[in-house]
Amino acid sequence: MESKFNRPLAITHPIEMEDRIKLSHGAGGESMTGLIKEHILTHFAPTNDGNREIKIGIRQLDDSAVVGDTVFTIDGHTVKPLFFPGGDLGSLAVAGTVNDIAVMGGEPLAMASSFIIEEGLPMETFERVCESMGKTAKAAGVPLVTGDTKVVEKGSIDKFMVITSAFGKMSPYLKSNLDEARIYRPLDTEWLKDSNLAEGDVIIVSGNIADHGVAILSGREGYGFDTNIKSDVAPINGLIGEALKVGGVTVAKDPTRGGIANTLNEWAEKSKVGILIDEERIPLAKGTLAACEMLGIDPLNVGNEGKLVLGVVPGKADGVLAALRAHPLGKNAAIIGRATSKIRGVVMETLVGGKRIVEPPVGDPVPRIC
Amino acid sequence: MESKFNRPLAITHPIEMEDRIKLSHGAGGESMTGLIKEHILTHFAPTNDGNREIKIGIRQLDDSAVVGDTVFTIDGHTVKPLFFPGGDLGSLAVAGTVNDIAVMGGEPLAMASSFIIEEGLPMETFERVCESMGKTAKAAGVPLVTGDTKVVEKGSIDKFMVITSAFGKMSPYLKSNLDEARIYRPLDTEWLKDSNLAEGDVIIVSGNIADHGVAILSGREGYGFDTNIKSDVAPINGLIGEALKVGGVTVAKDPTRGGIANTLNEWAEKSKVGILIDEERIPLAKGTLAACEMLGIDPLNVGNEGKLVLGVVPGKADGVLAALRAHPLGKNAAIIGRATSKIRGVVMETLVGGKRIVEPPVGDPVPRIC
Repeated sequence: MESKFNRPLAITHPIEMEDRIKLSHGAGGESMTGLIKEHILTHFAPTNDGNREIKIGIRQLDDSAVVGDTVFTIDGHTVKPLFFPGGDLGSLAVAGTVNDIAVMGGEPLAMASSFIIEEGLPMETFERVCESMGKTAKAAGVPLVTGDTKVVEKGSIDKFMVITSAFGKMSPYLKSNLDEARIYRPLDTEWLKDSNLAEGDVIIVSGNIADHGVAILSGREGYGFDTNIKSDVAPINGLIGEALKVGGVTVAKDPTRGGIANTLNEWAEKSKVGILIDEERIPLAKGTLAACEMLGIDPLNVGNEGKLVLGVVPGKADGVLAALRAHPLGKNAAIIGRATSKIRGVVMETLVGGKRIVEPPVGDPVPRIC
Repeated sequence: MESKFNRPLAITHPIEMEDRIKLSHGAGGESMTGLIKEHILTHFAPTNDGNREIKIGIRQLDDSAVVGDTVFTIDGHTVKPLFFPGGDLGSLAVAGTVNDIAVMGGEPLAMASSFIIEEGLPMETFERVCESMGKTAKAAGVPLVTGDTKVVEKGSIDKFMVITSAFGKMSPYLKSNLDEARIYRPLDTEWLKDSNLAEGDVIIVSGNIADHGVAILSGREGYGFDTNIKSDVAPINGLIGEALKVGGVTVAKDPTRGGIANTLNEWAEKSKVGILIDEERIPLAKGTLAACEMLGIDPLNVGNEGKLVLGVVPGKADGVLAALRAHPLGKNAAIIGRATSKIRGVVMETLVGGKRIVEPPVGDPVPRIC
C-alpha cells in the first residue's frame, strides 16, 4: 500500500529540500531533535543563560521545563481526523499536556487552550471538541482557566487545531519516591529527568503499545482496513501518582510521537546507558500488531497517548508494577527490559531468539497523530 | 476598495451561517465574546467551580488567569504576512504573551512556544522567526524555556503559526501601586482586573493608536497603498513597570484585536461605569489616519501590539503620564478621557464638537493581525 505518509517528499520539492521544513521535522524523532538543536536553540537558549531559576530549560529537550518550583509545558495538537476511535482532538489536547507535566514528576494545576479554527467549521464540531476537553479536564482534575481564539479564512488551516499549555508544581509523592530510589543508588536530581536512568533500572510499560497511531489511521478515509482498536488517549497523572507512591521511579515518559523506540533511545542517549528489551514481554494487542504488519510499520515507532514508560530501581520494580496493574489504565502493565552498560543504545531480544538494534526513529510513521 | 476583510461571509456559505464559525468569532470583539460565553464556558467553567485557588479564571475573560500566586496566559499567532513593517510573527508571538501577563500586574517569568509549520516552509523563514523570537524575549527579559513543533502537510496550514504561553508572578510594584490607589478610593482586589475602573479614573493611552493594523495591511499584497507606518509591536512589561512604580493604576490593557474601542467597552461593561473620551486627545499618526480613512475603517477599532491603556486614580494621573513619557515606548502618551457614571458605555467628544457612542466592535476590521 502506497500510503500518504510514505510518499517521498522529494516529489513535492525536487530542489533544495534540505533548506525546507519536512514532515519528519515535526514527527518526534531524530529529525525533529536535529531541527531543534540546529535552528531553534541557537536563538532561544542564550536567553536562558545565567538564569539560575531555570532548573530544566529548553536545552534539556525534556517533556516540560522547570522554572523555580513551577513545571511548565506547551503542546500543539493537529490530529487528523478530529474524531477517531477512542478519542478526539479535545481529549487529546488535554491529555497530552497533562501527561507532559505528570511525567516530569509534576502535579498539573491549571491549563490554558489556544484555538485556531478554520472559518466555516460547523459550530457543532467546535462544541463537541470543547465538551470533550471539559470532560477530560474534569477526569484529570485540572481546570481550564484561560484561552485564546483565532479564526482564519477558509483554506488557511485544516479545520481546527488546539494548543494547550499547563503549569504545575512538584507532585507531593515525588520527593519520597526519589528518596526510595536513593536507597539503591545515588541520584542527584529533584525531578524525573530523561538523564536519570542507570545500570540495572527496570523498564516498565503501563499497557498495550501503538493503539493510538493505529486507531488514527483506521479513522482516516482510504485506508481500507477495519479494526476494533481504539486510541488509548487518557490523562495519566493519576496512574503515575500510584507508581510514585510506591517509590523508586527514576525516569518516566509518555511515549507519544516516535513510540517507545523514541522514548527508550532518548533515555539511552541522555542517560548514557544501554537498554535491553524483550520483544516477548511488550504488551501489544493482536489487532494492532496485524494492522502494523499490514501497513509495514514498526509498532515500537508508533505513538501512544495514554501510556507510561518508567525506569525503576530494581528493588522497587515489582511493587511499582503491582501498583500500575491495580489502576484501570495500567491493567496490562509489564516489565519489558532493563538498563545495562553492557550494550550501547537500545537492543531488543526478538521472539525468534535473535537480537536487533532498535534504531532511534527518524519520526513517527503516522503523521498528524497528535 | 472591496477588500478581503469586508467580503460578505454569506457568499461562501449561503445556508446555515449561524451554525458555523465565522471570521468575526476570532476577531476580539462582541462576536468572539459571544462564542466564548455560549459555546466554551458551558464546557470549561464547571471544572473551575469550587477551586478556591483560581482567583481569576476563564469566566472573567481577562487577559490572563490567576491561579494561586501564578499568572498564566496563552495566545495563538496567525499573522499574515509573516513579516510586516516593524515586526514579524516572532516578535509578535513573544510580545503578545508577555503583554498579557504584564497588564494583569504580573511579572512574566518564562515562556513556552508551540510551532505549527507547513511542510515546505523555507528553513530561512523558520530561522528568521526563531531569531526574532529570541531577540524579543531577550528585550523583554523573559526566557523561552520549552516548546513543541508540529509539521503538517502542504496545504493544511498557511505557512507558519506560533502559539506562546507564559506564566509569571505578581509584579513587585503591584501591591504598592494598588495601595496608592486606595488612598483615593476603596479597591477590593489584588490584581489589575478589567472590573476595577471607577468614577473619576483617568484614561491614559501610551502612544499612537492603530499603527499595527495599518502596517499589517500595508504589508499585504494587493492593497495598493504606501505608508511609512510601522507596527508598534513590542513587549510593554518595562513600560507598565514604570507606571506601577508611580502608583495609582487601577486597570491596564494592551489594546490588541478590536483596538481601544474594544478595551474601553470591556472596561465599561465589566466595571459598570461609563467612559468619556476626547477625540482630539487621542494620539494618532497622520499616515495611519489617512490610511484608515482610505480603507473606511475606524482607527479606534484597529489593533495595537505595543500600546498600553490605563485607568488611573485622578491624583496620580499626571505622575503616571510623566513616567510613561519618560520611557522610549511611551513618548506620545496622553490622557484621553475619564470614567464617569453620568453616561453608560463609551462616548467620544468629537473634533467637530459633537458626541458619538463608541460601539463595542463586532471584531477587528483587519483579519489576522496577530
